[in-house]
Amino acid sequence: MSELLEKINKPNDIKNIDKKDYPKLAEEIREFLIDSVSKTGGHLASNLGTVDLTIALHAVLDFPKDKIVWDVGHQAYTHKILTGRKDEFESLRQLNGLSGFPKRHESLCDSFDTGHSSTSISAALGMATAAKLNETDEKIVAVIGDGALSGGMALEAINNVANLKRNMLIIINDNKMSISKNVGGMSNYLNKLRASEQYNDFKSDVETSLSRIPKFGSSLVKSVKRTKDHIKNLFISQGLFEDLGITSIGPIDGHNIPEMIDIFKEALKINRPIIICVRTKKGKGYEPAENDPSKYHGVNPFDISTGLETVTNGMMSYTDVFSKTLVKMAKANDRILAITAAMPDGTGLSRFQKELPDRFFDVGIAEEHAVTFAAGLAVSGYKPVVSIYSSFYQRAYDQILHDVCIQKLPVTLIFDRAGLVGSDGETHQGIFDMSFLSAMPNMTIIAPSGIKELKEAMKFAEHFDGPIAIRFARGVAFPEIKEDINLQYGKGQILKEGSKDGNNAGGNVAIIAVGSMVEETYKAIDMLEKENVHPAFVNPVFIKPMDTELIKRVAENHKHIIVVEEGIKKGGFGESVETFILESGIDADVQVMAIDDRFVEQGNVALLREEIGISYKNIYEKVMELTR
Amino acid sequence: MSELLEKINKPNDIKNIDKKDYPKLAEEIREFLIDSVSKTGGHLASNLGTVDLTIALHAVLDFPKDKIVWDVGHQAYTHKILTGRKDEFESLRQLNGLSGFPKRHESLCDSFDTGHSSTSISAALGMATAAKLNETDEKIVAVIGDGALSGGMALEAINNVANLKRNMLIIINDNKMSISKNVGGMSNYLNKLRASEQYNDFKSDVETSLSRIPKFGSSLVKSVKRTKDHIKNLFISQGLFEDLGITSIGPIDGHNIPEMIDIFKEALKINRPIIICVRTKKGKGYEPAENDPSKYHGVNPFDISTGLETVTNGMMSYTDVFSKTLVKMAKANDRILAITAAMPDGTGLSRFQKELPDRFFDVGIAEEHAVTFAAGLAVSGYKPVVSIYSSFYQRAYDQILHDVCIQKLPVTLIFDRAGLVGSDGETHQGIFDMSFLSAMPNMTIIAPSGIKELKEAMKFAEHFDGPIAIRFARGVAFPEIKEDINLQYGKGQILKEGSKDGNNAGGNVAIIAVGSMVEETYKAIDMLEKENVHPAFVNPVFIKPMDTELIKRVAENHKHIIVVEEGIKKGGFGESVETFILESGIDADVQVMAIDDRFVEQGNVALLREEIGISYKNIYEKVMELTR
Repeated sequence: MSELLEKINKPNDIKNIDKKDYPKLAEEIREFLIDSVSKTGGHLASNLGTVDLTIALHAVLDFPKDKIVWDVGHQAYTHKILTGRKDEFESLRQLNGLSGFPKRHESLCDSFDTGHSSTSISAALGMATAAKLNETDEKIVAVIGDGALSGGMALEAINNVANLKRNMLIIINDNKMSISKNVGGMSNYLNKLRASEQYNDFKSDVETSLSRIPKFGSSLVKSVKRTKDHIKNLFISQGLFEDLGITSIGPIDGHNIPEMIDIFKEALKINRPIIICVRTKKGKGYEPAENDPSKYHGVNPFDISTGLETVTNGMMSYTDVFSKTLVKMAKANDRILAITAAMPDGTGLSRFQKELPDRFFDVGIAEEHAVTFAAGLAVSGYKPVVSIYSSFYQRAYDQILHDVCIQKLPVTLIFDRAGLVGSDGETHQGIFDMSFLSAMPNMTIIAPSGIKELKEAMKFAEHFDGPIAIRFARGVAFPEIKEDINLQYGKGQILKEGSKDGNNAGGNVAIIAVGSMVEETYKAIDMLEKENVHPAFVNPVFIKPMDTELIKRVAENHKHIIVVEEGIKKGGFGESVETFILESGIDADVQVMAIDDRFVEQGNVALLREEIGISYKNIYEKVMELTR
Repeated sequence: MSELLEKINKPNDIKNIDKKDYPKLAEEIREFLIDSVSKTGGHLASNLGTVDLTIALHAVLDFPKDKIVWDVGHQAYTHKILTGRKDEFESLRQLNGLSGFPKRHESLCDSFDTGHSSTSISAALGMATAAKLNETDEKIVAVIGDGALSGGMALEAINNVANLKRNMLIIINDNKMSISKNVGGMSNYLNKLRASEQYNDFKSDVETSLSRIPKFGSSLVKSVKRTKDHIKNLFISQGLFEDLGITSIGPIDGHNIPEMIDIFKEALKINRPIIICVRTKKGKGYEPAENDPSKYHGVNPFDISTGLETVTNGMMSYTDVFSKTLVKMAKANDRILAITAAMPDGTGLSRFQKELPDRFFDVGIAEEHAVTFAAGLAVSGYKPVVSIYSSFYQRAYDQILHDVCIQKLPVTLIFDRAGLVGSDGETHQGIFDMSFLSAMPNMTIIAPSGIKELKEAMKFAEHFDGPIAIRFARGVAFPEIKEDINLQYGKGQILKEGSKDGNNAGGNVAIIAVGSMVEETYKAIDMLEKENVHPAFVNPVFIKPMDTELIKRVAENHKHIIVVEEGIKKGGFGESVETFILESGIDADVQVMAIDDRFVEQGNVALLREEIGISYKNIYEKVMELTR
């Protein structure tokens, strides 16, 4: 039942399909998406929600001339299908495979790479401004979810949109949530809009309503007349956006393709920026996803009939350890507060929310506000714990530095998903945090390497009077092999003393492994010990301050020091070790195994580590090479 | 004529002055401010504008129990005076002197350190939330300019304010500008509000107007009746904020103290967050500043009678060189566009705006949007040049990394005020850019050391197909001593070959000086040559990529390498040199003179350099020490 979909093999092929068949095409695409994502994993709910919207946009746009900027980008699968990439879905999110996000290098029809939230209006405004300057007529569309509108830069962009003297569409994909339930005034405002449909029923005259939208062409009135059935709830004046000088339309039904096509066509004729509010249902067409869109936001491979993941490991993740520990700590200490930026599920803080709702704050997609809000709580004697994914913390660089570090405030920053995250690719790898945090004065950074160490780090942070970051990896937590963890400020741990017994050259080597690389190094050591090679093995625990005493001792006793870290090399921990050794005048050879001045693409984390050269095999080989 | 001011020596002393004398007190404070700032320099226009507002707030608040968060913080001089710090104004903005911004370490009455724009609502919301949790009754007030409202994080915060179930005042200090003229939809909206005063005159019934403000107490109605004369223009329903779920009042006259006191008193009784829009005039009370508030935003010492700066050097700044060169280049290349974030004057781009208005974009205080907007222009074939002060670029960390670097887009980022800026202190020093930019893959960084090199760097950037940052210092540009500048990708310059002739140990030393430190090093070399010490002198020009060939050659030929840079050491250029030398196995001693893991306070730049240990004297001493 994919006869229509089979006709789509390159951009604009949709125009060869009869418009009345578009709803059937949408069905086929949904079936394809469910089938495909059930095998590869990927973003499901967001993509099911935007099938009809994407079809309507492709019906009125001409690719690659016209441009869509997909905010966040995790809803662009249908766009990929309609631009001729359906056969590549087998490789979705895999190394060298189809990206789960728009990528300019993948297709000319992907106009702008996205990944982080709230960038689309800024980028689209850049494109529309360029078109205005060039006096060309390509159409520019930004598609942004209601959740992403809570991100400051989207609002900065909206504040600038009114200056554009040219058409540009901003489609607000209102699905009543970002990844989880949406929060805040903007959300309440959109709720009011939704409610106003009923209100609108009271209005007898559509033209009255239309007349309040400035400069609306009479052609639009015609279009309204054609779609008479829905006439009452099509147009309302959206105070907020109108106040910011932008004409706005909606909400309209984001699953009614003919209606959207009519409205988009007319809106594209208007010589100014237009906001169109489109209501969609996340997970549309797949019942489990409709019922629990947050769960089906990003999924592993699953069984279509049951909706259950095919492979579950049932093991505890670092996120689980963190969130359970925090709830326990918070029950005993009423100063502890928890803050998330639209990720209660992803950060595990939904547990906190459930148990201690008054002390839990979901600020929406607003990482900047999250951190400075925490600073405000901290000056008032509270102990705020802010959990955000490492790559999203990049948004709050200045707030961490300017609002937390300068004032030396006791805010605990939890960097979840630190290190490689895998299939989300370049935009989501958490590989810059050690570098940027290490340069911040007054900052303390702990990289626990396993379950117990994470718990100890959190207890340490509870009583620490200053900014502190705790970074841990995505996925299954490592049950440490060394049990006697005794976390002390600025102190690392020797996990294994090297041995120089007999002819064992391995004793000349010490491995310093950071965070997730401790587990990887244990694997390497297992292999090395089979070859009777016994390097020393050190866990620095603290990235900042570095345990210089320990590093000095290790460097003086070993000819070769290897530092392994899952982060960008420049400014990272390995370089801290290197500069310390150089400046101390110790004669040791240091080799840093890290990510050397490159972004890291999507793929299975184990494969990526190998490709970068920081896998246990690479560690094994490096030690063998040095002992030869 | 400072009899009233003399009565103010500690917090809350204002309450001992008769309210009817407050306007006179305001006059005395203005006189004091003008006199004081004319001698020390400082922020003038913003502080003159908020004298009356601050008096009104101090009349109703109790310090230090109650809290004001001053957004940006450059308008808090009157607050400092009223909390007992007037005698310290002689040392304003000097090393170890009174800060020009609120500082918690300076007074218990300074509740939160500010400096960068748009943080106040987030911080105040944190404090108000803490008070709610503590069930305490301290009053929390954020004071934010209309310009700062264009900053994304302020809007993120406003989006969260509606959730607060407690009083908190957000005072929008509407002076129709940020530092320069304000831009964008928010500004237009506030303009509409201003216009609506007239509109409001048509309304006959104040109660009608009030009834549209939900949950307004009858006590407020009473207050309105008392201030009858102004009754018509006191209250209007502010659609935008109301749409976001926040009750709002205004605009009211920010120079009418009794009226403000009445309204603040009433507003503080309401059990929810309230926005009060207060109109003030920047520079109020000093004619030259009223007429040109942008010029009198931050001033050097000046003559009160003429308004002219007492000392002018008349020399060209880097900003001048940049802006003149850019206009010239842009006239010859229509792909070049200029973008600023509310700093057309500070960045010199007002020149571009005047000459090429269609290709100039002031996006408001919106650094994040500025960078991603530029990315959108760049994918469309334009050559956007974004000029922002170094410390404010910290706000756009993620946009530089995520939107520009991943896509390798040809956006030119001008880091003005890179390095120490002096009297604005911790929050404004541009000392992190080399560290954070160096860690970004695909980034190229040039640190020109003088006029010609800056021009060459700009020409280079024009034809460079990728992200490029050019950083230069605040203040007078250095006319290079070496004339044959030939800027090539990734290539540094030897400015002086060292000499080992005779008994000259200086030949064992090579100094690598970055950007502004080249000028400083020339001074050191002048001193050294008098002692017949002749170190080698290298200008790396490119921070990234580093000229490894040159560094290698220098390191192999000199026993001691000194790297001098005006930036944070961790992740900086010096560490790039160190790790390269260590990894290359070259036997050279490297010493990095940089800012070692600390923030840098306010003060004269020359003094600060000395205190940090990167002044020409320090360089001289270091070389002498190494040659002994």
